[in-house]
Amino acid sequence: MADREQGPDPQRLARLLEDIVSETAETAERGETTDYLPELAEGDVEQFGLVVVTCEDEIVAAGDADEPFTLQSISKVFSLALALEAYGDEVWERVGREPSGDPYNSITDLESHKGYPRNPFINPGALVVLDMLLAGRRSDEVPDFVRDYLVELIGEDLAIDENIVQSQESANFTNRALANLAKSFGNLHHAVDDVMAAYVRQCAIRVSCRQLALAGRFLIAEREDSDSPAALEDERRARRIASLMLTCGQYDGSGNFAYRVGLPAKSGVSGGILAVVPNLASIAVWSPGLDENGNSLLGTLALERLSEAMDWSVFGATRVGR
Amino acid sequence: MADREQGPDPQRLARLLEDIVSETAETAERGETTDYLPELAEGDVEQFGLVVVTCEDEIVAAGDADEPFTLQSISKVFSLALALEAYGDEVWERVGREPSGDPYNSITDLESHKGYPRNPFINPGALVVLDMLLAGRRSDEVPDFVRDYLVELIGEDLAIDENIVQSQESANFTNRALANLAKSFGNLHHAVDDVMAAYVRQCAIRVSCRQLALAGRFLIAEREDSDSPAALEDERRARRIASLMLTCGQYDGSGNFAYRVGLPAKSGVSGGILAVVPNLASIAVWSPGLDENGNSLLGTLALERLSEAMDWSVFGATRVGR
Amino acid sequence: MADREQGPDPQRLARLLEDIVSETAETAERGETTDYLPELAEGDVEQFGLVVVTCEDEIVAAGDADEPFTLQSISKVFSLALALEAYGDEVWERVGREPSGDPYNSITDLESHKGYPRNPFINPGALVVLDMLLAGRRSDEVPDFVRDYLVELIGEDLAIDENIVQSQESANFTNRALANLAKSFGNLHHAVDDVMAAYVRQCAIRVSCRQLALAGRFLIAEREDSDSPAALEDERRARRIASLMLTCGQYDGSGNFAYRVGLPAKSGVSGGILAVVPNLASIAVWSPGLDENGNSLLGTLALERLSEAMDWSVFGATRVGR
Amino acid sequence: MADREQGPDPQRLARLLEDIVSETAETAERGETTDYLPELAEGDVEQFGLVVVTCEDEIVAAGDADEPFTLQSISKVFSLALALEAYGDEVWERVGREPSGDPYNSITDLESHKGYPRNPFINPGALVVLDMLLAGRRSDEVPDFVRDYLVELIGEDLAIDENIVQSQESANFTNRALANLAKSFGNLHHAVDDVMAAYVRQCAIRVSCRQLALAGRFLIAEREDSDSPAALEDERRARRIASLMLTCGQYDGSGNFAYRVGLPAKSGVSGGILAVVPNLASIAVWSPGLDENGNSLLGTLALERLSEAMDWSVFGATRVGR
Repeated sequence: MADREQGPDPQRLARLLEDIVSETAETAERGETTDYLPELAEGDVEQFGLVVVTCEDEIVAAGDADEPFTLQSISKVFSLALALEAYGDEVWERVGREPSGDPYNSITDLESHKGYPRNPFINPGALVVLDMLLAGRRSDEVPDFVRDYLVELIGEDLAIDENIVQSQESANFTNRALANLAKSFGNLHHAVDDVMAAYVRQCAIRVSCRQLALAGRFLIAEREDSDSPAALEDERRARRIASLMLTCGQYDGSGNFAYRVGLPAKSGVSGGILAVVPNLASIAVWSPGLDENGNSLLGTLALERLSEAMDWSVFGATRVGR
Repeated sequence: MADREQGPDPQRLARLLEDIVSETAETAERGETTDYLPELAEGDVEQFGLVVVTCEDEIVAAGDADEPFTLQSISKVFSLALALEAYGDEVWERVGREPSGDPYNSITDLESHKGYPRNPFINPGALVVLDMLLAGRRSDEVPDFVRDYLVELIGEDLAIDENIVQSQESANFTNRALANLAKSFGNLHHAVDDVMAAYVRQCAIRVSCRQLALAGRFLIAEREDSDSPAALEDERRARRIASLMLTCGQYDGSGNFAYRVGLPAKSGVSGGILAVVPNLASIAVWSPGLDENGNSLLGTLALERLSEAMDWSVFGATRVGR
Repeated sequence: MADREQGPDPQRLARLLEDIVSETAETAERGETTDYLPELAEGDVEQFGLVVVTCEDEIVAAGDADEPFTLQSISKVFSLALALEAYGDEVWERVGREPSGDPYNSITDLESHKGYPRNPFINPGALVVLDMLLAGRRSDEVPDFVRDYLVELIGEDLAIDENIVQSQESANFTNRALANLAKSFGNLHHAVDDVMAAYVRQCAIRVSCRQLALAGRFLIAEREDSDSPAALEDERRARRIASLMLTCGQYDGSGNFAYRVGLPAKSGVSGGILAVVPNLASIAVWSPGLDENGNSLLGTLALERLSEAMDWSVFGATRVGR
Repeated sequence: MADREQGPDPQRLARLLEDIVSETAETAERGETTDYLPELAEGDVEQFGLVVVTCEDEIVAAGDADEPFTLQSISKVFSLALALEAYGDEVWERVGREPSGDPYNSITDLESHKGYPRNPFINPGALVVLDMLLAGRRSDEVPDFVRDYLVELIGEDLAIDENIVQSQESANFTNRALANLAKSFGNLHHAVDDVMAAYVRQCAIRVSCRQLALAGRFLIAEREDSDSPAALEDERRARRIASLMLTCGQYDGSGNFAYRVGLPAKSGVSGGILAVVPNLASIAVWSPGLDENGNSLLGTLALERLSEAMDWSVFGATRVGR
């Protein structure tokens, strides 16, 4: 949007992140872990990690920055990126890009739109995206698209939490209902079991805040070789994913998040949030206690604090030119 | 978000706007006028105006830039601004800030949320906002809050289209249903007739693209005296209104608009759109032909073209530093 | 359905009704009065009246049989009868005859069916029926169709409770919302205020159980001169109204009522219920305490007891031929 | 409801049924077969069968009375009867008894009622009923509760159409969605696959009109030994099932059916309808062409004609005592 020579000052960022970690440690109201899976319910709401990776590849970390957690719904950002790369705008023939105004697992919404999910970040949308990625694969292996992509983005190996996979396999009835309903409308081409198996695995990828912030760099939309058509296309895609994160990324709390934080972001039920400051920074925050919309309570507060202090809202700087 | 000495180049903008006007003139698919009111149905889909006002107060105009049209739902931006100035966050005790996932006049949505409108840009939300503004007024006069505010912002007098007022008075049953339902839940404090009378008048304010773009400057969020607390608060408010425009401003096409254009904007059924490039520019575009979501078809295309050419998406520049 | 020489034995009925009144007097759980109107909220849950009028015009009364109460929704049976007499099956072009599966004042239901109410016993259906009756009337007088009809059926004068009329006038926002929404879909031809005024008055007609049971005789569907085509048509109409009472007469508790009591019936929020034993008896019961669906708690219990003791379910006798 | 020595006259009935078959043969508008399964889509809309079994066990048959068709949703009457016999009113802790106001396979309805199906005749209700019957069974065999019960009622062996079973197994995504959603709310205790397998089989039972009408005798609610408590309980249960058939038996056309025909009935998508004249007769009709609600078009017309001619509505006779 504007000429700019350099990214944010790492030392200033480091001090700010430490301040946020200190303040957060003293916060009594920490939200509650999800009851979606026993393993997640046992999460420790005292944990809190925060990492910023700048457009100049500076890594600034604070708190439990290297503690692993499972990606859960944050994985939907990466599967969407893969589908957009493979299929371009064809993706939108099978998934919408509107906020749903309903909970992430609303089956009513899916029925009233005749199996066409409102956006790729609600569960049925993510299932349809995954169904697209499955095309051409052998059904006797469960592919790990998102894990492979993350490994490529980060340059480190990543594990899948097999306990979470097992637990989720046996507690997935709402998602199976959604998948079957999408299939009844002809909007799922592979077997429900195959889509579910791949879905459960991508939710169970273990990452730390450091790894997640590194993986989010592709959304900053700035590359050195950005004169090439391919690079430009990458940046356009990143921008569009960011638009979806802003309008749909925090479930039924997306409008509130945009109002308070002003940054594109995607949350997961394990307490992680990936946020983007376009052209400037990728941010990962994690704390297992959730608010009433299922987003990390302290993670959201930390992002609000960070956005305010750095003047980072996409809706305008308040100290322009000063 | 970034240091910057100057706004966009007016001469380059002028050439670009002329190009857009020329291309638009040749577009065959122009949408259809609304059937909401006979006066609006008679609108001329050949008309097209586009005006940009930059952060340095340069006015760049093209096409039917001085042709007046009625504000309709764009008025909701200004009544919200007045309510936020008067009541601050108390506004959110009576209206939400989430995209609704439903049409702008959905009464189902209002009933399922027990009279608490999802956001201030759907009709029931605008009615509740207006109800707040009515507090303390005498009920024997219909106040023109938005007109007075616009006159102050623009420095010119503005007329209210009395034919539209008459027409709307007699065709307003859905809005009356919404107002009565809000009242049944205790979320409308004044008489339905009083709120409706004020609502109809604010929708019928006549502005040109030039006037609307000038009025939109307050959303750019940059003031010369921005060191004062009051100025900072003004900028925060502008930023927050912009966040609501982005998530909820184009009815049930807001996600799509964010994806394609990437700018906060608010549309009206008469074919006008007010868009904001944070810190940089206020844009007004108008063409009476609408798309299937009720937003100006050519207006949206023009904004997409302008955003692309100027690299103006809030979700990131693709040519940073070049 | 079967040959039969005589109606139920009045003396046996009288003993049974006294038993029911005695048992009812000792029942601790009596439901709660509605909070819909202050006047109704003040109702006395100790009151209980029960009257049966047989096909041989025997009147058997017990309890507070002559205490007046307002008709409320029971009036919908009589306005429907008038509309069916005047318009025949044309009524069904503007109102459906299916149970709604939603509360009686659900606006969602009306919106999703585009202003076509599901049946004549939910509020919007009653408003549309009344709109049909208004055709040809002068709008400067509020007609009392139902009162006039009841007076004709009973042969006694009936008052309208003006306090209830006043109270309801000022607390009627949900119904006004429904009327406006119906009008927005073109399914209300008269002014909302005119329809509302007539509606409020028909709800406020004062009747006793004795009067109501007498008025319900027309639903028994047996006339002495039943060989004439007009009489046959009357009986067919009565039968059809009874079918609607059975499927839709107790709001969202109609299925449960059919299961337990097995008789066509229509309830009102003031605690009255009119029930029909086809070919045999008209029954009125009244007690102001309501159950969770808004139907008289003790009234329903009494009808269950009476139906069981007299073997009166339309779904079959258990002691046939004995 | 009334003393009565004898049932309907078989000879008169026989003439009437022949008349109906003749008239039906000349009817041009015959509805369309369902597209739910290829095997059913291929049904012949020229086929029409009608059988009445009286309370005196007279069998009166006409048309294609011995042509077999699959039970489909009519099976729900028999599985409900088994569940009520085994569990009594406990059934209603897991299923409701209200008309749904929504299509038979609406998942929205199930979600909004938190997995508690509105009644046992919509698909999720039937699945929950079946889940109750499965208690205590070994999961490695698929039980045929309804088939066994029908065989007992009729005294003839009945086949299950294995082609329909196969076809339905592979086209059952909506039902699987419903079952999974019920399970996600804790209202399905067995594995989805086990419930689905039993469900598919009960839908695929082959019966003729003659067999179906014989099976329906248990709903007439008159037994020779009806003085015993067990017999009385049987009759009460039959009466209650009949009440559910009347309010919920014809999907979202139940109110209309009650209005026109006035008899408790349950339809299936293969074009069969089982109807009951309490205390007097069990009726089966079959013709594969359906109306817009999924009920047999000619079957409904035939029942309307029969009810009119025999004066059989539960809502009252028009020729009482003549």
